[in-house]
Amino acid sequence: MTRVLLTGAGGNLGKVLRASLAGEFDMIRLSDVADMDPAGPREEVVQCDLGDAEAVLDLVEGCDAILHFGGMSVENTFETILNANIRGVYNIYEAARKHKVGRVVFASSNHAIGFHERETRLDATAEMRPDSMYGVSKGFGELVARYYFDKYGIETASIRIGSSFEKPRNRRMMATWLSFRDLSDLVKCVLRTDRVGYAVVYGASDNDETWWDNTLTGYLGWHPKDSSAQFADDPVLTSEVNDPNDPAVKFQGGAFASAGHFED
Amino acid sequence: MTRVLLTGAGGNLGKVLRASLAGEFDMIRLSDVADMDPAGPREEVVQCDLGDAEAVLDLVEGCDAILHFGGMSVENTFETILNANIRGVYNIYEAARKHKVGRVVFASSNHAIGFHERETRLDATAEMRPDSMYGVSKGFGELVARYYFDKYGIETASIRIGSSFEKPRNRRMMATWLSFRDLSDLVKCVLRTDRVGYAVVYGASDNDETWWDNTLTGYLGWHPKDSSAQFADDPVLTSEVNDPNDPAVKFQGGAFASAGHFED
Amino acid sequence: MTRVLLTGAGGNLGKVLRASLAGEFDMIRLSDVADMDPAGPREEVVQCDLGDAEAVLDLVEGCDAILHFGGMSVENTFETILNANIRGVYNIYEAARKHKVGRVVFASSNHAIGFHERETRLDATAEMRPDSMYGVSKGFGELVARYYFDKYGIETASIRIGSSFEKPRNRRMMATWLSFRDLSDLVKCVLRTDRVGYAVVYGASDNDETWWDNTLTGYLGWHPKDSSAQFADDPVLTSEVNDPNDPAVKFQGGAFASAGHFED
Amino acid sequence: MTRVLLTGAGGNLGKVLRASLAGEFDMIRLSDVADMDPAGPREEVVQCDLGDAEAVLDLVEGCDAILHFGGMSVENTFETILNANIRGVYNIYEAARKHKVGRVVFASSNHAIGFHERETRLDATAEMRPDSMYGVSKGFGELVARYYFDKYGIETASIRIGSSFEKPRNRRMMATWLSFRDLSDLVKCVLRTDRVGYAVVYGASDNDETWWDNTLTGYLGWHPKDSSAQFADDPVLTSEVNDPNDPAVKFQGGAFASAGHFED
Amino acid sequence: MTRVLLTGAGGNLGKVLRASLAGEFDMIRLSDVADMDPAGPREEVVQCDLGDAEAVLDLVEGCDAILHFGGMSVENTFETILNANIRGVYNIYEAARKHKVGRVVFASSNHAIGFHERETRLDATAEMRPDSMYGVSKGFGELVARYYFDKYGIETASIRIGSSFEKPRNRRMMATWLSFRDLSDLVKCVLRTDRVGYAVVYGASDNDETWWDNTLTGYLGWHPKDSSAQFADDPVLTSEVNDPNDPAVKFQGGAFASAGHFED
Amino acid sequence: MTRVLLTGAGGNLGKVLRASLAGEFDMIRLSDVADMDPAGPREEVVQCDLGDAEAVLDLVEGCDAILHFGGMSVENTFETILNANIRGVYNIYEAARKHKVGRVVFASSNHAIGFHERETRLDATAEMRPDSMYGVSKGFGELVARYYFDKYGIETASIRIGSSFEKPRNRRMMATWLSFRDLSDLVKCVLRTDRVGYAVVYGASDNDETWWDNTLTGYLGWHPKDSSAQFADDPVLTSEVNDPNDPAVKFQGGAFASAGHFED
Repeated sequence: MTRVLLTGAGGNLGKVLRASLAGEFDMIRLSDVADMDPAGPREEVVQCDLGDAEAVLDLVEGCDAILHFGGMSVENTFETILNANIRGVYNIYEAARKHKVGRVVFASSNHAIGFHERETRLDATAEMRPDSMYGVSKGFGELVARYYFDKYGIETASIRIGSSFEKPRNRRMMATWLSFRDLSDLVKCVLRTDRVGYAVVYGASDNDETWWDNTLTGYLGWHPKDSSAQFADDPVLTSEVNDPNDPAVKFQGGAFASAGHFED
Repeated sequence: MTRVLLTGAGGNLGKVLRASLAGEFDMIRLSDVADMDPAGPREEVVQCDLGDAEAVLDLVEGCDAILHFGGMSVENTFETILNANIRGVYNIYEAARKHKVGRVVFASSNHAIGFHERETRLDATAEMRPDSMYGVSKGFGELVARYYFDKYGIETASIRIGSSFEKPRNRRMMATWLSFRDLSDLVKCVLRTDRVGYAVVYGASDNDETWWDNTLTGYLGWHPKDSSAQFADDPVLTSEVNDPNDPAVKFQGGAFASAGHFED
Repeated sequence: MTRVLLTGAGGNLGKVLRASLAGEFDMIRLSDVADMDPAGPREEVVQCDLGDAEAVLDLVEGCDAILHFGGMSVENTFETILNANIRGVYNIYEAARKHKVGRVVFASSNHAIGFHERETRLDATAEMRPDSMYGVSKGFGELVARYYFDKYGIETASIRIGSSFEKPRNRRMMATWLSFRDLSDLVKCVLRTDRVGYAVVYGASDNDETWWDNTLTGYLGWHPKDSSAQFADDPVLTSEVNDPNDPAVKFQGGAFASAGHFED
Repeated sequence: MTRVLLTGAGGNLGKVLRASLAGEFDMIRLSDVADMDPAGPREEVVQCDLGDAEAVLDLVEGCDAILHFGGMSVENTFETILNANIRGVYNIYEAARKHKVGRVVFASSNHAIGFHERETRLDATAEMRPDSMYGVSKGFGELVARYYFDKYGIETASIRIGSSFEKPRNRRMMATWLSFRDLSDLVKCVLRTDRVGYAVVYGASDNDETWWDNTLTGYLGWHPKDSSAQFADDPVLTSEVNDPNDPAVKFQGGAFASAGHFED
Repeated sequence: MTRVLLTGAGGNLGKVLRASLAGEFDMIRLSDVADMDPAGPREEVVQCDLGDAEAVLDLVEGCDAILHFGGMSVENTFETILNANIRGVYNIYEAARKHKVGRVVFASSNHAIGFHERETRLDATAEMRPDSMYGVSKGFGELVARYYFDKYGIETASIRIGSSFEKPRNRRMMATWLSFRDLSDLVKCVLRTDRVGYAVVYGASDNDETWWDNTLTGYLGWHPKDSSAQFADDPVLTSEVNDPNDPAVKFQGGAFASAGHFED
Repeated sequence: MTRVLLTGAGGNLGKVLRASLAGEFDMIRLSDVADMDPAGPREEVVQCDLGDAEAVLDLVEGCDAILHFGGMSVENTFETILNANIRGVYNIYEAARKHKVGRVVFASSNHAIGFHERETRLDATAEMRPDSMYGVSKGFGELVARYYFDKYGIETASIRIGSSFEKPRNRRMMATWLSFRDLSDLVKCVLRTDRVGYAVVYGASDNDETWWDNTLTGYLGWHPKDSSAQFADDPVLTSEVNDPNDPAVKFQGGAFASAGHFED
């Protein structure tokens, strides 16, 4: 019997994955700090604060793989980020180590590399240049994942998610958009492949504009099927005119790169 | 109101662009040292010697973007190259600086890199290795464009055009052919994208044989739609047998690389 | 008149090429140490031990190009490898030099690079890391080919063949599979292109999982048309579960990398 | 007047720097969570827990540069690391931002890259591969420093300190040793140079065995003057025989890489 | 008999070379557009405008090697640059081609790469990023030199001279200083080595601060013997305090990078 | 007790090592196919044909490390090379595997990379481009060594020896010269270091002219102490004038690269 844990199951992408993965495994354990819809067939629902080490240890018990989509997904105060994303990711990997979970999908973010200029092509070896403390926390999660692979052999695919929404919401997302289908396919590829090792994957659909290069993780066999080009006629997207010297245009992280400090 | 200047409008590619860009902008200003067809709707026609700094200053006034396709497009005497391509490109950028034009498409050429061997894959970072004084002058234009971006923020896409004709004329062009449609699409991509910075793009269609790699400018969103493969059954092209040790075959610049000095 | 020599014509891939190349040239000379089917139209059949220098010299006489698919294609005792693959490849190139043959297709193998980890993306510049003495012998062949190009100008494309069978036989081959059609197309591309120089090409179809990158040999114009994805529903392939830490999974060479020494 | 803050002034390296920097600046503010020797001339002593944001804000006020040597310098429980190194480094940079401090020297560690193999040459672009949660926390600090430079222009030199002791204590330290003099010189170079930007420097003396390459930060002008070779006759060091397959020998982090999890 | 031509013999570096090369060759031909001291033993003095093709053709006749130090060595009006540096360098290479001169030392400049940031380490493969039209003209000269090597086999070492003065004049020159002795040694190395090919060398002494890397031209055998460190106690240099965000500090070209357009 | 085997002990470099290593180990076993001087203290002398697998198996028994300097050291007929260098190196590694020898120093040669141009800087990752069948056989030896490390964990340092003579014999050797002392030091470094892994080292002294870069093997701690500069006044070396287009000058392998086929 195979049981997969999905954290952040009550969030936007968590809901997408809950739906798209329904029935794929013997059992999926759904977790969030917030309320979730009740368990359906082959589902378990467990409410859990990722900052609580003991609760996370219980949460992970009996699972074969973890889809770690929990935590804060935008900028916030440092203490909020610290508990949800820093303590959270450590607790997940410690629990994985103790319960011998072999594979993790970690929802990292393009904001871990958001201060690269748009003209800079990035692949998995690019230096991390976070654009926010949120981005720093995602970088921290990647370092933890790298460490648990090197020392304990726990495989991780860190997905630097671009902009995963129903559709692009602005010009920048024409380049960064990740369709829900492509996200789900990527998660499935990581779970099904023979060997993941430690992988860094950029989460973007097959858009016309591309900043990121997944050539180095071709062994995962993921090929996005969607493209933002299907929205090219949307007047909201095509009428947008942007200043090339605006930091939100110059840097890959967009508005995260131009925003000032998040005040409490 | 948006006004775009097209230099070299009376040349082969200038005519192609004049036709394919018709109606795309509020106004297109067409310029050449030679005669041109009279202005159509939303067109202005201005005869101008690019080597004449004052004339170029007048020419550029009131324009928002420049498509610089003017100058000599094959080898010639040094003084001819000097006036048309070296003085010419300087005059264009000086006028752009003074009139605060933000973006230029510069028609560079594969002859700026024509002394690389065919087996060498080139991307935007490849060393320039011109195969002619014409190629040197195109390299000079790229340096000027790079300089005006670094110092004055004028964005340029330098297109190292392969062989842009109705159809390939010999075996080499099976690799270097750039269809008129793909050229026009590329120009439009550069004009429409949020940010160009300083970009070097190889101008070739999606041919089966490829020497050049545009991965680094994926952020421009250009994807050629044509391929020389559609001419693969042309007996002229398929019956051609070439000596692999002929410099015109060994080097990417073809006959430019094997030609001797251009005598006055 | 063009005559092409095919060695190893009685082997699995030799038979595939014999069939797919039928009628492509004025004459094809078929050779093997074992028995072969009798010659058809525009075919010659010559039995030959590749370890016999004089016999090979006779074999190559009058040929314009060589498809060298002969020799051992799996691990064996050193002396067997020595005669068939090491002496064999030397005899072929010496004969090519003496008879002024201009171009060779050398059937190398992924086992010349089999000790790279699966997560390592390889292109033509990758260090050779053989996974067997068979793999070492293929590396030797590549060095000989490189040498005869550098010193004598004989062009070679060394094809590091993945797994060329009717269909994939296990999970690993979903990444390494090379269809017979794609193999044949590749051989034809090498024979028809203007200039080959010395090229290293990975022989895999357009599979979803990819470990190898042929970008650097884009000038050959080869584009595989098949994909192992067509076999994705095969229960034999999809039900296979592999340990990511098994050397046969961890290293690209598969079972060759995990096998012990070949005992006489 | 120039005031420099030194955190971790009560630790081993803090004491070294306190002594070697005595009199170099108008004022040096010394801080530690533990007791320190009383202030001498041009010294201020301030006890401070780096995990206390308000206290750190006060600590940094009035300083022109920060030498951040505080925090845990070996593996410990996660909550200890979290407070001292993660909260600590964030508090330092936030205080620097609010008080407009322009330059920081951050005492990072070779344990941020300790899971690279010894045969792998590292420069400033090497992927971070921490060998411990301590190493992860140092990687976190580097990400914070990178972020505060990209967004707020605060310059940092992150020094990945090897083994800074009076003398090497084992064979490994023949490669990783950093003399106290070389450490002090490096700190001075960073403080005196016109421009630091964001720099990653490996902290090792000019030893015979070298794993790390500081070529990319040659603009800092630092040249170590000492070498572990002066201890080559030490029988303790020369009689040590190590198993090349021991993880503590195979990986650059030494015993940190071979140690198991730090239990509370 | 060996005759070497030195252009720009009346300029600062020309005078240095005239003195240091005295007696090294059978004959040295000294040329400048300005007056020069009368010829000494084994010297010839020829006044010549480099923009005059016929005069240059006469000038080069009978020479075995050329040290091309003539032309403008700072920013000026475009037409001045055009005549002295662009026409000038072309005339020199055309004359070299016609008179079969085998080797040239070309005095290029760090201003051909002056818009790289100080933190960027450059070697011979670095993209040219000129900081002035003067820098563009030096880049043009390098392209001409590359072209004449690729097509006509004329060898050139392009020296990207840093700051060659009696002693450093400001903080920046602590990194860019090239002593007269080191310059002379470099010129001699290029003249004496068996094979130069086309080489790009950075002209800086063995200073503590280094931005440039000559590893790739180690085959020339040049090792600078001086260092700006000998001037480290000069109060003019050590008391200078610079803003790291000043473009003249941020970019390698110094004040050339921060200067506006050169007005006529 | 430590016993080291030295093959090729009767050859030029074998004699050098026999002398310089005298007394370094408990026992050194000296082997050659030719006669050798009788054994001195802590020496054993064993005559052996490296092409004889059983004899080599006996030879290696009881040894802890192997210095493999035996075989042909210049071009010869293929069958001679085959027996001495190809069979020879295989027999050595097979014996090492069976007798659990942990470390080998393999005397490879610059002729394994001799067809690189002189202007090409090489490090350990350079493509092998042999200049002779002798060079091919050295490349074969490197592949065998790489394979036995990857599969069986036997560590090897492959030394690509330049020109190891009493003193340089021609201009080329000013760049390629390896003093006997530096060779001996290198061998000792490899034997004494904690971990070698699989290493490729270029064997040249600290000459002024350098083509090769050992940065990647800095972990071995080898620093050559001699330089060919001490012979710079030798009139034989300084009066030599060479044509830069002679293949023996253009390519690193020197006369090996320009020589034709070795006829029986």
